[in-house]
Order: sequence, then C-alpha cells, then structure tokens
Amino acid sequence: IRTGNGYDVHRLVAGDGVTLCGVFIPHDQALLGHSDADVALHALTDALLATCGAGDIGDHFPPSDPQWRGAPSRIFLEHAARIVRDKGGVILNADISLIAEAPKVGPHRETMRARLAEMLAISIDRCSVKATTNETIGFVGRREGIAAIATASVFYPPEPA
Amino acid sequence: IRTGNGYDVHRLVAGDGVTLCGVFIPHDQALLGHSDADVALHALTDALLATCGAGDIGDHFPPSDPQWRGAPSRIFLEHAARIVRDKGGVILNADISLIAEAPKVGPHRETMRARLAEMLAISIDRCSVKATTNETIGFVGRREGIAAIATASVFYPPEPA
Amino acid sequence: IRTGNGYDVHRLVAGDGVTLCGVFIPHDQALLGHSDADVALHALTDALLATCGAGDIGDHFPPSDPQWRGAPSRIFLEHAARIVRDKGGVILNADISLIAEAPKVGPHRETMRARLAEMLAISIDRCSVKATTNETIGFVGRREGIAAIATASVFYPPEPA
Ligand SMILES: [Mg+2]
Ligand SMILES: [Mg+2]
Ligand SMILES: [Mg+2]
Repeated sequence: IRTGNGYDVHRLVAGDGVTLCGVFIPHDQALLGHSDADVALHALTDALLATCGAGDIGDHFPPSDPQWRGAPSRIFLEHAARIVRDKGGVILNADISLIAEAPKVGPHRETMRARLAEMLAISIDRCSVKATTNETIGFVGRREGIAAIATASVFYPPEPA
Repeated sequence: IRTGNGYDVHRLVAGDGVTLCGVFIPHDQALLGHSDADVALHALTDALLATCGAGDIGDHFPPSDPQWRGAPSRIFLEHAARIVRDKGGVILNADISLIAEAPKVGPHRETMRARLAEMLAISIDRCSVKATTNETIGFVGRREGIAAIATASVFYPPEPA
Repeated sequence: IRTGNGYDVHRLVAGDGVTLCGVFIPHDQALLGHSDADVALHALTDALLATCGAGDIGDHFPPSDPQWRGAPSRIFLEHAARIVRDKGGVILNADISLIAEAPKVGPHRETMRARLAEMLAISIDRCSVKATTNETIGFVGRREGIAAIATASVFYPPEPA
C-alpha cells in the first residue's frame, strides 16, 4: 500500500461559477486556469500519480500545451487512474479537502463523490470530499483563490521475488 | 486500509491561551471559534470522517448550531471515532502537524498524545503530534491564525463477497 | 501500516540557489535556515517520525543547536529513517509536494527521486517528488518562501500478542 498527497491552488477572478470535483457551482467568481481549473481534481490527480512515482500533473499535461485549454479535468484524473491500474494498482480510497471561503460545498458533496467514484471506477464509500474555510485570513480568506489537499491510497501487488 | 486528510484554521485574537489537542496552553492570544476552536482536533476529526466518506465536521457539527458554542472539541473527535468503529474500522494511526509561530508545542506533546490516545481508544505510539512555524511569513507567520494538517489511517474489513 | 504527514516552510532571500530533496538548483534566491534549509527533506523527516510518534524534526535537531548550522538535511532524514527501522518499520513509500513559484523542479525530479531512494534505502519507484506553483498568490506566490507537504507510509509488524 502506498499513499500519495496532492496540493493545488487556482486564482479566483470575476465570473459566474467554479467547477470543483467535476461539478459546476454557480458563484460570483470563477477559477482561473488553462483547463477548467478544477483544483480538487488536479490535487487528486497528483496524489494518484504520487503512489507510483509517476511525476505530477504538470508533467503529463503541460499548461503550455494548447490542447488542454479549457479541458475538463476528468481527463487528467482518469489518465492518472489508468496509469495506476496499468501498474497493477487498486485504488483503496481518495480524499479531498477543499479550502475556500465560498461557495458552499456541502449541498454538492454527494454529487461530487458520485463523480469521483465514476472517474476512479471505485465505490462511492471510498470517495471523500470535505470543505473548510480559511476563516477570512490568508489568500483563501481574502477570496483570492481556492486550494485543495488530496490523499490517495493504492494497493500495489508485491513484486515477484 | 484507507487514509484521510484534514485541514483546519482558526484565527488568533487577543486572549490568554489556546486549546490544542485538548490541552490548554497559556499564551498572549486565543483562538477564535464557535467551539473551543481546537484546530488540531478539528483537522483530525475531518481526517477520520474522510476514511469512510462520512462528510466533514461542518456537516456533523454546524457552526450555526448554538449547542456547540464553546464545546470541547473532544466531542467532535470522539463522534468521528465512533462512526469509524461503527463501520467496522480499526484506527491504525493519527498524526497532526500544527503550524503556528507560537506557543511552543514541544513541552505539551506527550500530554497531547496521551489525550489523543484516550479520545481515539488506541495506543499512544499510534498517536503523533508535530509542530512547525511558518517562518514569520503568510497568515500563520503574521500570527493571524493557527493551521493544522491531520492524517488518519483506518483498517476496514473487506466487504463480504 | 501507519501514514504520517509533514509540512515545512523556509523563507526565500537573495542568493544563488536552493537545495531541494538534496539537489542544489541554481536560482536567483536562496532558502534561509539554520541547516541547508531543504524544506522537502524537512517535511519528509517529519512524516517519517510521525509514523512512530517519535516527535518532530525540531525535537531531534533543535535549530538552536550550533552543530546543525549549515548541515546537509540528509542527516535529518537518514536519522528519521533509522528510527523507523529500529522500531521494525519498513518504509512503503515517500511522497513530497513542493509548492514554489520557482525554480522549476521538473528537470531535477529524477535526480531527487534517486537521492530519496538512496537516503531511505528503498527502491526509486517508491519515491515521489511533485511540484506546483501557488499561482502568484499567498506567501509562496509572492516568492517570500517555499513550502513542502510530505507523506510517508510505513509497515510496522504487529506487536506480539
Ligand atoms: Mg491546477
Ligand atoms: Mg475548526
Ligand atoms: Mg525546516
């Protein structure tokens, strides 16, 4: 069993909503990014890649590459899950903490978990999404951005002796 | 085995001490919050809930609910540990990183670990408390708040086939 | 199996390079610290110590102790790995997320992973190094410092009944 972490941030700008864990939430700000800027899926993509030392999301999907402009981040997460499975890995669980003053994540939590379960091809009880504010302080507290911290645990079969 | 993370922040205001990991430490600031604002136990509560996809602390204990005003956060942590156990989970370990310029956590570490062991009903060698400063930068460095990052690993028995 | 986390920050000042994961990278800033200020190795040292409740890096290597002035941080990491092994632990994997606007980590990733594998005495596929920026916001975004988040998973044999 190997456990990886992931951290990501995207800036908030004027806009009409944010995509988090693959779910669009109407909001008076938007996340800035080359892709859909889904900070939650980006952090989880990194956590999965970490379990097999497969680099990071910037490696696999350079922001400089025009083909990922506006791309849905599920492409990135599904790519990482495929790499894990190709190495014999079985995803045990995936967990995301969203750090944002707004919008409220609670009403969307179950939809987000269902999306994760589908993207990762694991059962929903193995998928967790949590949210907290930064209590009005720091860059998150000033609504300059949203951060996410992810953790993924993966079972890899023992190497043949 | 599933691993969850937790992150929490509370603001520092003028006061006479902070409660961290259930231990009151005299200090020239206090943590602001609806409950006792024990940022360490809040982060760990989230990490435990994450291992079984049981939402987050705000879900179970809404800050808008007057019954949690000034509540000791051990209530929250013990509630999360009960949910984990009710699902058949065995807590393998719990780890907290406190990020604070002050007060010093070192002299209280062993008491904190003993409290965690008691609240989680696991042995003390499975409980870890660490601390670091933010080197005077960022909101933690400016003494505007204290942050905590928690990790919990839980063994869940395999579902019957 | 127990999983620990680690978090560290060091300030950036004018200088000619930074040491990250044991690799010196020429840069127009340097990391400030008592030792070589290798924020990545410090976070990972904490994550390893956390898996056996062995305190934190500040405990084992007080910044006030002159003998660690300018010390290479591999000393700290190797010390933590030795404590883990002395308790019967087998390191399953180690993962680091670097949060920095610059320098670019990608070109050095494989060297860093090889260094980690050597310091921890585990295979390189169990060692992961990732990097992300903070999108120009917060203390990392303002290039005031570099942060690192680490995760380590360790197998400890069951206590005799
Ligand atoms: Mg991103
Ligand atoms: Mg809280
Ligand atoms: Mg340090």
